[in-house]
Amino acid sequence: MRDLGKHPEACSINTATLGFQAPIETVIDAVARAGFGGIAPWRREVEGHDVSAIARRIREAGLTVSGYCRSTYIPALTEHDYKANVAANRRAIDDAAALGSPCFVMVVGGLPEGSKDISGARRQVAEATALLLDHGKNAGVKIALEPLHPVYAAERSCLSLLSEALDLCALIEGNCSDPWLGTIVDVYHLWWDPNLSRDLARAGRENRILGFHACDWLVPTSDILNDRGMMGDGVIDVPQIRQMVEDSGYEGSVEVEIFSVNNWWRRPIDETLRTCRERLATST
Amino acid sequence: MRDLGKHPEACSINTATLGFQAPIETVIDAVARAGFGGIAPWRREVEGHDVSAIARRIREAGLTVSGYCRSTYIPALTEHDYKANVAANRRAIDDAAALGSPCFVMVVGGLPEGSKDISGARRQVAEATALLLDHGKNAGVKIALEPLHPVYAAERSCLSLLSEALDLCALIEGNCSDPWLGTIVDVYHLWWDPNLSRDLARAGRENRILGFHACDWLVPTSDILNDRGMMGDGVIDVPQIRQMVEDSGYEGSVEVEIFSVNNWWRRPIDETLRTCRERLATST
Repeated sequence: MRDLGKHPEACSINTATLGFQAPIETVIDAVARAGFGGIAPWRREVEGHDVSAIARRIREAGLTVSGYCRSTYIPALTEHDYKANVAANRRAIDDAAALGSPCFVMVVGGLPEGSKDISGARRQVAEATALLLDHGKNAGVKIALEPLHPVYAAERSCLSLLSEALDLCALIEGNCSDPWLGTIVDVYHLWWDPNLSRDLARAGRENRILGFHACDWLVPTSDILNDRGMMGDGVIDVPQIRQMVEDSGYEGSVEVEIFSVNNWWRRPIDETLRTCRERLATST
Repeated sequence: MRDLGKHPEACSINTATLGFQAPIETVIDAVARAGFGGIAPWRREVEGHDVSAIARRIREAGLTVSGYCRSTYIPALTEHDYKANVAANRRAIDDAAALGSPCFVMVVGGLPEGSKDISGARRQVAEATALLLDHGKNAGVKIALEPLHPVYAAERSCLSLLSEALDLCALIEGNCSDPWLGTIVDVYHLWWDPNLSRDLARAGRENRILGFHACDWLVPTSDILNDRGMMGDGVIDVPQIRQMVEDSGYEGSVEVEIFSVNNWWRRPIDETLRTCRERLATST
């Protein structure tokens, strides 16, 4: 397993970790200063701005883009809304390409308001992913399905298990040695899964791991969405999971993504970045 | 699928639904009055009381016991604590027998404080379950493993998936036509699982369903432990899941279990019981 203290190029920061306190230009410079090699921006920092200027700023800071977050939720009650969701994601994939992002991170969405039909939502996700995969190939951007913790099944992601994401990849793209469709492995979402070891080995074997996200599960968790912990502060054995991921053949970046409304988002971004960089070396 | 409006004997109430506002004797009488055929009491209502008197009261009210809640968490950091947890569960199984409960519900526990070793916790659970199964057989009480939603993996249950519970049953007891080890199917914990249909069919085929618990998942959920909804008020397609459970061969009771600190637990128990009884008929 790589010593992340000695591999800044493997260390990336997801800008959500910094709470969107500062403009993206300020964040880019701070991330580079703090000894990271990568950055993963969000659409809220990019859309409506000069995307090529942001891309240039990232390059000139010596950073690479590890991913671009994230998809508009897919499932909808009407064909009109469903198509609008797909179209919004096509535009976002174009921005991902302009940023030089290797992948577009898809949080697929949960149940549309008023629906109890999770199977229907999953069918829409499968159909839309196939369409977006075509668009991504043309744009040179891989599609990264991120299974989310089952606690988000109703409101954010009807895709919960890593095995489910891999099955969906195989269904849509078939087996191939250099796939354009893959998955994000996030320890927060997957740490509890009794099949994690098996499924990570499969994900590596099938070349489907497009990103690895790190944070921690706090006990107690005060807010199920925005109380994620810094690596080392919770109950996830993050190094063990990273070991499995790297043993499976993954050589990409380790991206810190912490939603923490009452702790890290309130701190100065330089302090949060310094802590992330240290914990990548010691507790990830 | 049974019409629960016409099958009071299939309708049971888990006393936690009523918020432990009244003594068990009062609860028993109210449950019988409200048209239920079954009741599932908790240890806090039984331990330290005259168990045989409670059992008699339940019988005389014309009720059967659908289950007895619940196990002391198993995983522990020390052998001493682990053995104490197993011993506490043996005593509770004896009380389950005295109550005439067909099964003892096991919520297995999560990570002991300070531990990040979920595999170790699972090994302790497997070992303890084998011991408690022996005790249950002697006492005439089946052991019902309840997989809990993965959001509880850290603090309440390192057993999350129905498939995982069934694998554990097979590992411990082997295949048998009349097993003493089985599982509780609770819609709140399992509704999101993409493999639910497959796993419920297997659970039925292997005669492992010892109980079926109903409530609903509210959107939004204000409290991840104690904001469960009345059937029909959330996003779970409860009738569809009950259909799968009954199609698998299950003929036991449908037990309402709702943890709801800010809503149902604050209402008069007769009102909650009346609503549960109606929703069993219309929305379960």
